[in-house]
Parts: sequence; structure tokens; C-alpha cells
Amino acid sequence: MPNVKLVVEYNGSGFHGWQIQPGLRTIEGELKRVLETILRQDIHAIYAAGRTDSGVHARGQVVNFYLPVEPDLRRLRHSVSSIMRTELSVKSAEIVPDEFHARRSSISKTYRYTVFHQECPPVLDRGQVWHVGAPLDLDRMQKEAETLVGVHDFSSLRGAGCRAHSAVKEVFESGFVWSAPYLIYSVKGRGFLKQMVRNIVGTLVGFGRGRIALPNMPAVLEARDRRVAGVTAPAYGLLLEEVHYGS
Amino acid sequence: MPNVKLVVEYNGSGFHGWQIQPGLRTIEGELKRVLETILRQDIHAIYAAGRTDSGVHARGQVVNFYLPVEPDLRRLRHSVSSIMRTELSVKSAEIVPDEFHARRSSISKTYRYTVFHQECPPVLDRGQVWHVGAPLDLDRMQKEAETLVGVHDFSSLRGAGCRAHSAVKEVFESGFVWSAPYLIYSVKGRGFLKQMVRNIVGTLVGFGRGRIALPNMPAVLEARDRRVAGVTAPAYGLLLEEVHYGS
Repeated sequence: MPNVKLVVEYNGSGFHGWQIQPGLRTIEGELKRVLETILRQDIHAIYAAGRTDSGVHARGQVVNFYLPVEPDLRRLRHSVSSIMRTELSVKSAEIVPDEFHARRSSISKTYRYTVFHQECPPVLDRGQVWHVGAPLDLDRMQKEAETLVGVHDFSSLRGAGCRAHSAVKEVFESGFVWSAPYLIYSVKGRGFLKQMVRNIVGTLVGFGRGRIALPNMPAVLEARDRRVAGVTAPAYGLLLEEVHYGS
Repeated sequence: MPNVKLVVEYNGSGFHGWQIQPGLRTIEGELKRVLETILRQDIHAIYAAGRTDSGVHARGQVVNFYLPVEPDLRRLRHSVSSIMRTELSVKSAEIVPDEFHARRSSISKTYRYTVFHQECPPVLDRGQVWHVGAPLDLDRMQKEAETLVGVHDFSSLRGAGCRAHSAVKEVFESGFVWSAPYLIYSVKGRGFLKQMVRNIVGTLVGFGRGRIALPNMPAVLEARDRRVAGVTAPAYGLLLEEVHYGS
């Protein structure tokens, strides 16, 4: 059976996250419905590199699915983008080897979180940035962000209900770029726990505001206790930027 | 009479430009109505540094207006931002000397134009970027953009119906930043003709696609003929970034 890989961009605002859930509008559900309509073929399941939460956006989500018959990829791309145009577009479509799996084959993913750091609220970027008007110690935040690089136990930054067996994850890159009024946090890692990026950002902003009781991020990780970390940053500031595969 | 200066950010999508026009929803019209409601004072006119066209956005538009009685600036800021929150916010409000005039006192303005340069259309930035999927020669575009710095006759890049006495304008900065998928053009100048920035961008993209018959931008300016330049780039990609005043 042909294995189809798509790279998609979407605005998560109108969806209850990636994964199909009965009675709720999800990205997987809508994409599956649209693909089945266009292709007139049944799709068993769509596998995504990252199962984004409700409200989270993607610039480079990667998905794959199997079809009984090889599709016209060019038509598929244009039809999906045209039907879902305000919410999702297909950046590329290709046939990949049978063993390719969007999540299991990936070696790392990059997420980006945008804090809108200006006293007055955003108008042009509403729904895609977290507004933090309070003063922030940016140097401090960058210093704490950098300490996340490496292999750590992220129990303190794991969302409630996370079902991963282990909270140990490897982070390759973690840091901010300040381009007023945007404070952009990028993190690249092998895998992420539920709400891990949003909890990282909430905690880094907590350090920036002087609101975290523990002295630094290593101490937060060391505690292995969600209660010592900061708030969960809102979903709408988060973007799945890119999924990386071996060559 | 107290002279009030505001710095405002707005999303121009829902407006027929800045300037009041009978029967049309404009930014000046809405802002005036909201200010008069909040302050319970009549405002004769609101002067803006740049009278943005229909659909053009602003990150740092500067306006001023005279009031019979000095207002509570903090309340004014918060009330306007709260009433107009999805479309406009007030970044700062202050009382300035009588002679301050948002446009005439300014020494320069910076505009930013965002081209979304990726084959498939934008989803996350719809309505704020111009989608150019075709291949572009970015080095060529940067080279042509730089030639605009200096004092030039911009007749070839002047919109139809422009009523300025002279087409001679001084440009201080002109260039691109490429941050995939965004190709961001910034231009700083003492003053701009009608649709000048959009015509510059349309012409630079024309050079990038090899679609301009003349050999370079100096030849386009030299011709003093709108027909030799490129298309007018869409309004929604344009943003009035900042207005500069002497110290």
C-alpha cells in the first residue's frame, strides 16, 4: 500500500487539537474527512509527528497515512489546501517507503513559542502570541533556558495526565530571540512530554518576573515536582515549527 | 487647548483606510467616535503621521488631536484599547506642546512590507502578508532595493491620483531581511507618495522574477513613467512600523 507523507501548516485556533475525538472538531478528523472525499479512498489512520494540543499551531507538522491506490499527489495537495485554505495548507506531498512513520522515524522536533512582550496588548498577532506586559529579566530567562540543553528528567515540567513511561528527555537547543515586541523561544528535542514546552515557557517567564521560589531551572528539574515550576503558558502561543528526519 | 499624542497599533483589515469618508468605516472615524464617547468632549479632527490606505496595518501610527479639557490619559488608553481591542490598541498617550503635529513634526517614517515566499499559501499569516510562490532572485532584489537610498524622483512609483506637488522624496534606508518563509522589506524615508511603498515592493518582486523590462531600478526611476514599473503590491502586506521625531 502506498505510504503518503505530507508536511502541513495549520492554524490550531478552531480545533480541539490534532487527535480525533468523538463529537469534537480536530485537525486529524477534518483532514481525514477531506482526504477521503477528494481521494474516494478510505484512510485507516493518519499518523502525526506531534499530536498538538487544542489551540496549538503548526508550521511544519509531518503526517503519513496508507492508501489502497497511489494518488495524484499534485491534485491532492492543491485540493486539500483549497478546501481547508483558511485553516490548513499542504506544503509538500510525497510517496515514502512503507516503513516511514511520521513520529517514530523522526529524530527531533523544533517548537517555537512567541511571547508578546509589550505593555499594551497585541492587535496584529492576536491568537498567536502570549501577552506578557509585566517587566521581564531577559538575560535571566536566556540563562535559565540554556540550562535545559542535555538529558534531564522533566517530571517538574510534565502536564497532568501525561502517560509517557519516562520523563527523561533530551533537549538539543533551547533559547530566546528578542525581536521587539516578540520574545521567541525555540526548543529542539528528541521528544516532548505532554505540555512540556508550555510548562517550560511558563517557568522561564516565571523566572523573568522573579516569581519562582527555587533559585534556578536545574533546581526546578531536580525537585521532580510540577508544583515548584511556573504556570502552563497558553496553547495559542505555541507552534510546531519543524520535524527533523535522518538523511 | 491640551494637545494629545497617541501611538496606536491597528489591524487595517476591517477598515477603508485611515481617513474619514462619508458612509465608510475608517480608522479615524471609529477612533474619533470612541474617543468622543469616552471623553464626552468633541474632537474637531485627528491628525495622523501617515494616512494609511484601505487594508494597511500599523504597529506605531502616531496621531494627535486637541481637546477642550485635559483628559485622564491612563483611563483614555485603557478604555480605547478595551473597546476596540480586536482592531486597535493605544500603546502610549501623552500631552504634548501645542505646536506638535503628528505628520508635520515627524522627521521620518519606517514602513515594513512582508512577502510570504513559499510555494504553498500562508495559513497562519493570512491577511498580513503577500504570498509570492514563484522563484525570486533575492540577491538581485536586495541590490535593487539599496539603489533607492538617497534623493530621487519617484514618479515611476507614484500611485494614480497622487496629488503631491513634487515626486522627489528622500529615502534613508531600503532593504530586505530574509527569515524563511518571510521576506521583509523595510524602508525609512522623510515622506512617501501615494502607494509608493507598495509600488516599490511590486517592482522589486518584479525584478526578483525577471519580469521588469528595464535593466535596473535607477532606469525605472529615470523613466518617470508608472508603466515601466511593477504591479502595486497588495495593501494587506504593508505595515506602518514607526514614526520618528526629533529629540
